[in-house]
Amino acid sequence: MAVMDLTFNEQGLIPAIAQQHDTGEVLMLAWMNREAINETLRTGRVAYFSRSRQTLWRKGETSGQTQTLVDMRVDCDADTLLLLVDQHGAACHTGQRTCFYRALRNGEPHDLTTPLANPADLYG
Amino acid sequence: MAVMDLTFNEQGLIPAIAQQHDTGEVLMLAWMNREAINETLRTGRVAYFSRSRQTLWRKGETSGQTQTLVDMRVDCDADTLLLLVDQHGAACHTGQRTCFYRALRNGEPHDLTTPLANPADLYG
Repeated sequence: MAVMDLTFNEQGLIPAIAQQHDTGEVLMLAWMNREAINETLRTGRVAYFSRSRQTLWRKGETSGQTQTLVDMRVDCDADTLLLLVDQHGAACHTGQRTCFYRALRNGEPHDLTTPLANPADLYG
Repeated sequence: MAVMDLTFNEQGLIPAIAQQHDTGEVLMLAWMNREAINETLRTGRVAYFSRSRQTLWRKGETSGQTQTLVDMRVDCDADTLLLLVDQHGAACHTGQRTCFYRALRNGEPHDLTTPLANPADLYG
């Protein structure tokens, strides 16, 4: 599939923000390579590139907490993507709905929400 | 000001997503260094680190399109920030409200909105 000219970094990656399409919650930031973008556009299931495992990472393949793509947005410099998604369950590996569940207050992190699920149940 | 342990990349930077606090619009992704974070927390005016100019970049210092910090969120791995902000005018250097004004449809970018302002007016 042809994809417009995007600017990838030295590792061939581009940051992608996932946002729940209807509530506007920002769920996570992850990275995509060209293969992840093409697969996501082709299948409608969001795939990223795992920098720690150096491999394609189909969101939810282990946990079942999948992301369905609703729309893909590109920023002005074409070096960041915004994915409007429908997130099934918890986006975060901690079992939280969003990875951004902590606020920095007076230099210290404070949890704003509680997990939807137990990570041990998601990742067994 | 003390700041919790954050994970910066090899360049001493951390990505920061700016989101309009009340509407949920994702406005932009930029990068912060420790100095930008500390200044933002101290002043309440959002500052980033400009990778192209390699200097602190006080959002709106030229254009007048400032960002006021409402809350700072930290993700699960402490390697990405989410800034809830109040954006004055256009967040994007193109004069668009958000940098993510384009959708990728069939491999081609399509503008979803029109600029709020003429960049020539913002940047002289």
